[in-house]
Parts: sequence; C-alpha cells; structure tokens
Amino acid sequence: MGLLAGITSPADLRRLSPDQLPALAAEIRRFLVHNVSRTGGHLGPNLGVVELTIALHRVFDSPRDTIVFDTGHQTYVHKLLTGRQDFSALRKQGGMSGYPSRAESEHDVVENSHASTALSWADGIAKANQVRGLEDRHVVAVIGDGALTGGMAWEALNNIAESEDRRVVIVVNDNGRSYSPTIGGLAHHLDTLRTTRGYEQFLGWGKRTLFRSGPPGRFAYDWLHGLKKGLKDVVAPQGMFEDLGIKYIGPIDGHDEAAMERALTLAQGYGSPVIVHAITEKGRGYTPAEQDVADRFHAVGQIHPETGLPVAPSRFGWTSVFADEIVKIGRRRPDVVAITAAMLAPVGLAPFAKEFPERTFDVGIAEQHAATSAAGMAFAGLHPVVAVYATFLNRAFDQVLMDIALHKAGVTFVLDRAGITGDDGASHNGMWDMAMLRAVPGLRLAAPRDEVTLRAALRAAVDVDDAPTVVRYPKSALVESIPAVSELDGVDVVARYEAAPAGGAAARRVLLVGIGSMAGCALETGQALAVHGVEVTVVSPTWVLPVPAALVKLAGEHDLVVTIEDGVVDGGVGSALAQRASEQGVITPQAHLGIPLRFLDHASIDQVTTASRLTPEDATRDALAALALL
Amino acid sequence: MGLLAGITSPADLRRLSPDQLPALAAEIRRFLVHNVSRTGGHLGPNLGVVELTIALHRVFDSPRDTIVFDTGHQTYVHKLLTGRQDFSALRKQGGMSGYPSRAESEHDVVENSHASTALSWADGIAKANQVRGLEDRHVVAVIGDGALTGGMAWEALNNIAESEDRRVVIVVNDNGRSYSPTIGGLAHHLDTLRTTRGYEQFLGWGKRTLFRSGPPGRFAYDWLHGLKKGLKDVVAPQGMFEDLGIKYIGPIDGHDEAAMERALTLAQGYGSPVIVHAITEKGRGYTPAEQDVADRFHAVGQIHPETGLPVAPSRFGWTSVFADEIVKIGRRRPDVVAITAAMLAPVGLAPFAKEFPERTFDVGIAEQHAATSAAGMAFAGLHPVVAVYATFLNRAFDQVLMDIALHKAGVTFVLDRAGITGDDGASHNGMWDMAMLRAVPGLRLAAPRDEVTLRAALRAAVDVDDAPTVVRYPKSALVESIPAVSELDGVDVVARYEAAPAGGAAARRVLLVGIGSMAGCALETGQALAVHGVEVTVVSPTWVLPVPAALVKLAGEHDLVVTIEDGVVDGGVGSALAQRASEQGVITPQAHLGIPLRFLDHASIDQVTTASRLTPEDATRDALAALALL
Repeated sequence: MGLLAGITSPADLRRLSPDQLPALAAEIRRFLVHNVSRTGGHLGPNLGVVELTIALHRVFDSPRDTIVFDTGHQTYVHKLLTGRQDFSALRKQGGMSGYPSRAESEHDVVENSHASTALSWADGIAKANQVRGLEDRHVVAVIGDGALTGGMAWEALNNIAESEDRRVVIVVNDNGRSYSPTIGGLAHHLDTLRTTRGYEQFLGWGKRTLFRSGPPGRFAYDWLHGLKKGLKDVVAPQGMFEDLGIKYIGPIDGHDEAAMERALTLAQGYGSPVIVHAITEKGRGYTPAEQDVADRFHAVGQIHPETGLPVAPSRFGWTSVFADEIVKIGRRRPDVVAITAAMLAPVGLAPFAKEFPERTFDVGIAEQHAATSAAGMAFAGLHPVVAVYATFLNRAFDQVLMDIALHKAGVTFVLDRAGITGDDGASHNGMWDMAMLRAVPGLRLAAPRDEVTLRAALRAAVDVDDAPTVVRYPKSALVESIPAVSELDGVDVVARYEAAPAGGAAARRVLLVGIGSMAGCALETGQALAVHGVEVTVVSPTWVLPVPAALVKLAGEHDLVVTIEDGVVDGGVGSALAQRASEQGVITPQAHLGIPLRFLDHASIDQVTTASRLTPEDATRDALAALALL
Repeated sequence: MGLLAGITSPADLRRLSPDQLPALAAEIRRFLVHNVSRTGGHLGPNLGVVELTIALHRVFDSPRDTIVFDTGHQTYVHKLLTGRQDFSALRKQGGMSGYPSRAESEHDVVENSHASTALSWADGIAKANQVRGLEDRHVVAVIGDGALTGGMAWEALNNIAESEDRRVVIVVNDNGRSYSPTIGGLAHHLDTLRTTRGYEQFLGWGKRTLFRSGPPGRFAYDWLHGLKKGLKDVVAPQGMFEDLGIKYIGPIDGHDEAAMERALTLAQGYGSPVIVHAITEKGRGYTPAEQDVADRFHAVGQIHPETGLPVAPSRFGWTSVFADEIVKIGRRRPDVVAITAAMLAPVGLAPFAKEFPERTFDVGIAEQHAATSAAGMAFAGLHPVVAVYATFLNRAFDQVLMDIALHKAGVTFVLDRAGITGDDGASHNGMWDMAMLRAVPGLRLAAPRDEVTLRAALRAAVDVDDAPTVVRYPKSALVESIPAVSELDGVDVVARYEAAPAGGAAARRVLLVGIGSMAGCALETGQALAVHGVEVTVVSPTWVLPVPAALVKLAGEHDLVVTIEDGVVDGGVGSALAQRASEQGVITPQAHLGIPLRFLDHASIDQVTTASRLTPEDATRDALAALALL
C-alpha cells in the first residue's frame, strides 16, 4: 500500500509534502485503472484530472470552500480524496454513485450531470456567502471546455463578471483531445489562448534569431513551428474573458501539480472572479499496451466529454436502426438535415455525417440553439432532424413550444435513451418527454415498439412539414418485430385473448395499451390476464400524441383500460387518453402504469424497472385489482 | 401627406433619394406618435429604430434576404415599410399584431417575443441557405443589447462564428438608456466598445493639444471628457466578438441613416458573419412637451427593453400585493433574497430592492441562470424568491427539475401574468406552467384566488425549505377576498348550494373546483347550477399541486366533478385530480375546463377568455351536459 489509504479527508492530503505527490498521483491512476476497468465507469476523464483535483484540495479548504464539478462524472479522484475509496459497487444498486452525491459526502454539492450548470451554482453560492457575511470563503467551479458552449455558462459568466468582490474561481478543464472536439468560436478562442502568447513570443525570438542564419535556421524555425501544441504553462492575460471583466490565468499544464497549485493559489489571492485555464489530457498516464486492456480503454474513452454518457451505439439497438434509416431518408430527401448537440456518435448520426457532412450540424452542448436553429432551417426550406437524448430535450421546452410549434415548423426530434436509463442515476432518465410534450399544440409524438415501427415512424415523421414531430425510444434492447394481428385507424392490435367460457357471467373486457417498448410488457400482461379468464385486447399505437381517436373508441368498448408507459405517469400518455375519453363521454375506468413521480436512484435498468412496478407481474396484479373494484 | 403613403414595399423605399430620408424618418415618427398614442403599444422602442430600419430595408432585399427581429415589438417601422400602414386596431382582435406575423406579410419571420432567439433563427436560416445553394442571400438579425445576456444568444454566436462563409449580419441595437440597464460583464464590454476607441483617440488629441495651453485648455479638456457619451460613429474593431471570430463594425450612430447604410453595406460586402453595433436612443425624436402627451410617453416608455412587456405594476393588482408582502417577509426573514431576470419593476420587486439592495439580484434575461443560481443560494443557506412572468419559466424547466427539485432546494418561484394575458399575443400567455410543473417531483404549487390567499400562499411558500414552491397569479383584476364558508383539510369551500326539493328524486351533486382566480367563475357557475336544481359544492384549493387528498375525497362524495383553470387543459390540474382519484378508486366522472391546446390569437383578456369557453355560462352549459350523460 501507498499513500492513498492514509488519506481520509483533504486535511490528510494537505499534510503530504510536495515530493510525495507524484507518487500519490501514480497510485491514484493505478487505483482507477484497476477498479474502473472492472466495474465500468468514466475512466478517461478521471485520469485527466488527477493532479488538478489534488491541487484543488490542497489549495482550497472543502467544505468550507465549495468545490462544484460540472457534469459530475469527473469526480472519482475527488471521491478518493474525500474519504470514499470503496469502488467495488460503483454505479451499482446500493453502491457508490458515479456522480457527486450529498448523501455520500459533505464535499459533494451538485448531483445532476446536465452540462454547463456549475458556473450558475457557483454564482449562487458566492452570492449567498456574501449575503451571509461569509465572503472570505471561496467557490470553485470546475468546468470542461465543451460545457462552456452551453448558454447557461454564458449567463453565469456574465453574472459572475458583474461582481468584483465575490471569490469565484473558474477552473476550465480544457482537454482538446477528446472524441468530440469542442465546437464554435469559443473553441477557436481557447485554441488561441492555449498557444498564442507563449508561442508567439517564442516564435518571434525564433524568427529573429534563426532566419538570420539562412536555410538551416529556416528549417529549425519550421520545426519550432511544429512544436506549437507542446507549449504550455505560459501565464498570459488574454482576450475575451478579460473583456467580460474576469481575470484570466493560463494556460497551465493541468498535469503539473505544482504549477496548478501555484495558479490556484494566485487565483485564491485575487478575491475577485478569476478563470484558471488548465490544459489536460483525458486518459493521461494510462497506456493500454502496458495494461493489456486496450478494448476497455477504448470503450471507456468513447464517452461524451461533458456528459460522460457512452458514445458507442450498441450494434443492434434502437440507435443503430435510427442510424441506418436516417441515411436512407437522407438519400431520398435532399432537404433532410441533421442536428446534434455535441452527441454525433452517441445518437447514431455518425453514418449520416459521413455521407452528408454538409447537411450535418453539431451545435455544441446547446439544446436551445439546436431547436431554434432548426426552426430557422425549416423556415428556409429544410426538414431538420434533431437527435438528442430524451433527458436533454427538457432544456429546450420553450424553444420547441415557441419557435417550432408556434411557427408550425416541420422539425423532427429523435429522442434516444427515453425512459429508464439505469446506472447513470436520476438525471439521465428520459422520463419527462411525453408529459412535457403533451402540452405542445400540434406536436405529434411516436413511441415505436420495434424495428419495423421505428423505421416507419421515422419515415412518417419527416413527411410532416407543418408541425413538430417526435420519435422516442429507450436504451434497452430492440425487438425486430412485434407484429400486429389487426389494425384500427392507425392503432395496431398486437394480441386478442378471448375469455374461456366460465359459468354464465360474461367475461370482463380489458384494453391493454402498451406505449412504445412497453408493448412487450403489455403482451405478457395480456397473457396472464387471459389465464384469469379475462377477455383482453392488447394494442400498441405507434403515434400516441395527440391521442388517436381509435384509442378512445376502443376504450369505450371495454370494461377497463390499462396503459403502460416508461415515462412519468403524472400527465403521461395514459392521463392524456383518460382526458380525451372523458371529454367524449367515454367513462370506462382506467389504470395508468408508468414511472412514479420521483427521482430514480442509480441501479441497473432492470432493477429500476422492477422498482417502478413496470413488470408484467405488477401490471397483472394492478389490472386484477382494478377489475375487482368494478 | 408625405412620403410614407407612397411606400407599399421596400422597393419603393429604395427608390427614394438620400435627401428625402430625413423627411421620411420625421414622418414615420409623427405617424407612430399619432397612432400608438391612441391604441397603446410599444412607442419608445420603435421611435428608436426608425433610421436603423430604413437603412436595413434600403441595403438588404427582403424577403430574398431575411430580416429577423428579436422580440418583435420593435417592428412597427418594419411594418410601415412593408405595406402595413393601418394601425387603427393595433393589438386588437382582428387588427394588426403588435409583433411580426407571417399571416400579415412575407417580410415577417419570427412571431414570438421571448428574447434572445433571433441569432439562432439567423444561424438556422443561413445554414439552410447554404445547403440549398442560396448562400448569396443575407440573413440579418436585429437584437437588443439586453437580449445578448440570454444564454441562447451565446450558443448562437458560438455557432455563427464557426462558419466563415455564411452571410449573417448581426445588428446589435444598443440603447443603453433604457429603464432596465443591461446587466453584467457583457454590458461593461459594450460600454467599453461604445466609448473607448473613438473617445480615446479624440481625448489623446485633446490632451496633447489643450494641456499645452494651460488652465483654459484644461477646462476645455474636462468639457470634452464630459462629451464622452456623445461620441459616436467611430468604426473600430474590438475585443470579444473578434476573439470569437466574428467581424465587428462599430459603434455606429443608429440615428444617422447614412452612417447606418454605410455600415450595413460594408457588412454586406464581407460575405462572413459580422456584428454591426448601433447606438440608438429609445423614444428618439419625440418630445413630450411638444406633443402634450407626457403621461402616455412615460407609460409607453415603461416597458421591458427586450420583451416589451409593461413595466409598471397596476396599483391594485396581484403584482402590488406581492410587492408589499415580499417586503414584509424580507423584514422578518433575513435569509430571503429576491432574483429577477431583467424584470425588477414589472414583477413588483422594486420596493424589495429599495429596502434590501444587497439581497436583490437581477441576472439579466437569463431564466436558466436565475433558477440554478437560486439552487446554489439555497444550498448555501438562503431562501431565494425568483419572480418571473409565467411564460418565461418555460425557459428553465430543466433547471427547476434537475438543479432545484432533484437537490430538494427551498426555492420559491412567483409566477406573474399566469393564465391569459391578451393583447400581446400567443407567446405571452402564461398557460403552460401548471401542466409543466406537475411533472416535477416534490414541487408544490399554489394558485391563490384573492389577496388574502395570495399573502398566505407567499408566507407558506417561503417556509418550505426542502422543495421548490410556486405561487402563480394572473394579470387580471385582484379581488380582495372570497371568503371560505368552511374548510376541509386545507381545501376551502367557498359556497354550498342545497338543491331545492323537486319531486321525489334526489338532486345531483356537483363538485366545482375553481383553480386560482377562476374561483369567481366557479362561484357564478355554482349559482347557475343551483337554479337548475343541482346540489353544488364550490371549492377553491390554494395549493393545487400535488393534488390535495381532500379534493379526491370530496370528488368521491359527488356525482360529477367540474374543474375550471386558466391553464392549458391538457395535463393541467383537472387532469391531475382525475389521475389521483382514479388511482384511489374514485371513479366520479370529471369534466375539465381550461385553455384548449392551441396558441391563442391576440385580443383582450376578456375576448380570449370567452373564446376559450372559460365563462360561467360555458361552464354551466358543460356541467349540465355532463350531468345529462350520467
């Protein structure tokens, strides 16, 4: 054992002498590789912040000073240094969260992992410290370069800059070498910051010195020119952030712990808002060849730089079918373009981007802009397909409503990872989409149940040119086909069970509505109910919003309606069906099964599904209980 | 008559000679003052963009080139120059919209008036033009300096900067003299741009020239120094925007039409993204003394610089009661702080800000930051009260969910202008709040019915420290008190009507639920139903989300439930009550009255209310029809 076991809090860390820190950093890297390669998790980002996190906890005094991490998947090192070294059940039910967790530690603050929020948290905490007379406390926000493309970060920077006496330290963790390069003008500016000052000075000297010496010097100059990206740790004030009124320190080599400590100590001394620009390398210090886990490294490396969500689409899942179908649509329809918010590969747009690079737009972590720029594109004659994770569309509700729906724009949203997503915890579940989008006038939403209906839904969605359309699907396994046995005005009937004749009484008739991928659950529930002598119709409407008229009609022909959906049950599709039915005088009792209105703990998808009572067993029990009340 | 009548399209405008333009500008100002002072409307902002708009339509070729206005209340001049000169029914039912309207003109693009969207629209349109091979067309976005504080604007700037070959011209309409000064670091930067370059050059000359001449020169220098704000039309490249990679032209005197034409022509020639920074004065050219309508000018001037919504709270309305009560709460509770998104006066926070300036935070037009910084403040021991218009909370759904509710933060939202707002048109109605917030775990929402319950709800809301609370109220008149006749577990019964004995049959029992200010409508409906021999209970629950258990119990004791709410009916409070009732086996039929799921045309509040069938007459008719089905 080494140094790590002796660190139960940041105070222990501060007692180490500087010459012990390289050994500690090496030990932490070994720990991470050893443990995370077994449990899975966010290896690369955490290997990139080892020295940065050590320096943070040596310079600042958490929890007296507050350290806020944007998109908390980069907090493994922070956890190790704050008394949490049991990584055996990382991200598993009952085990340590993959994100900060207030229940775990007083050193953790922000639990969610939607990007670009840390600066707003920091601004709020600093303002509160000031109001409460605690302005000597520092607030440190650690944010990735990619997360700075989100609008919230700008709103926060603008506010942080407003004050000259609040102690906010913004650490920009700039790892330009990630899979999804940061997008836009800001990225260019960071590039400039990263290299210009020191580089230009060096180059100026080189040019003056070497050009005088003729051709050999010229070659030396060109060689120096090629070194551009290697120059780091040059302290130079610069441009944009200072225009806003925020001090700037950087760029700093984020793997030089001593340099990081010096920069953070300098920042600490200002007593006013300051940015520390640290250049780091994701996956630093972990040579796949040495460890012989090349595949694991690659897979772990393939995550989104800010959200930490897996990049690689599963080869046979919903994502890959979308990836395939959208390319086919693109070949047929030159007006179809694709938009992603820094998630090109994870949402399955890589093949489309490869074939139609000029028709693919990555807007950065900027869902609001994704939606409204899509409205602009629709106005100008295109049909944009915006592919995002369901949970992130919550960021753009206003834009879907006011820019797209109000303007009757033909924009298609493809919501991946809808429903229960499991081990990433509360904020990743895509469970709000249907309840939220139900209130958007004119919007049409499809929840396909299998590959066949997914492809059909996508084709139908891009054919609508006067309203927003949405196609949503989960992270879980995709079934190739659940065939319809009949069809009623667009609503597929996937099974019918006649009741076995039992005595003289007529059998009770139940309509089971399986929304999207819950069709399978509805089918199993139907079988179980049939065994109990119930007459069952199992339907799977692909287009669920607005509620199909045929569904209301079917409801009127049964004694009980049971809806099953993998979205929040409050205000979901079941609720929408009940409201439409009631309006039309159809008063058949309804039972709505869905995700209960609470935040879900991290666990496997199956475990969360079971805990949410979204199994055929629970549905059968609920349906029988509801029948007993009739 | 003058020149204006001869302009039926921008082509007519372009045929005028430059020396005719001052007369045209003067005529437009007279027209605006004459007409808008009669109908009401956004006078000041439009007086500020007369020359700017003339220049835009002379340099660019709309609709071939696209001109997009952020927060469309600054488009009166644009309307006058594009064939719309009948202002007699401005903002009235059937009359001209106060915002752009595609139904009115091919020159109008963006109809909504939520701020900071124009740059995203422009980016989308420019991308589409490029995909379609129409890249020679220009896209011009006109945006106020205040709207640049919104995160969407940053997301868009970052994307616009990404391209060097899309023809996006961003006109920043910078009127620093508005009632709500623009907030934050950006404002300081714009200040710097506005004055530094030309000023410094001039001052350098003045210093060199005048100081040599001794004391008299020194006085002259000081006088020149005082002229600082008068220096305009100096073209100088500068700082931040260029750091992002966007060309910068400015600052330009926005009232010098020729200078504006020169700047726009220069911008047009670049073929790449460029910012034109125009300095304008709101209300320019309209001397209240000359016109003898000083009051009207003042009132019209009191609007929000970006949204154009009225600033002055009505003296006896909901806003002023909040304004009064929050000060009382502030005196009692030193931990209570207030947050506004550039709407300090309109939401009634001015008195609080006057008494507690250090506990009042204006974050700019940045609802996302307002919400998340509030979460940070709650974490650090304060209880923030975020006061916004209901329609703008849609911008922060994700932050309410993920930063506040997930973290069990005690943050109170006060939603003003909830429900139907009338003449401002579709995007101002605060009709989505209840349906949207219903899906937020742990959130508690109050819809008070009168002054008494409003004050009580505010006091109760700030006492909750482990969950978000919301108090929402409308723009319409406030009743001082609708007293309760009894109370059942927190649900106020405001009237009971026993049925007149009629024959032998028992009377039908109806539960009328009036949500918030619809309590009055429910009371009148109850009286009307009683006349029809119906037994009626009228209740007005102040706290409606989560649905009170007592409401479900009451529902079980009646033959029909009728809910009335001034929010979108789909997924609203009525729908929530039905779902809770159904879950508990209470199958009393329910009829839900609310705003239908569509965007509402501009008209008076009464007209929109009637069109939405939210009158006692309609409610009575619907209740009787539902009873007839039983």
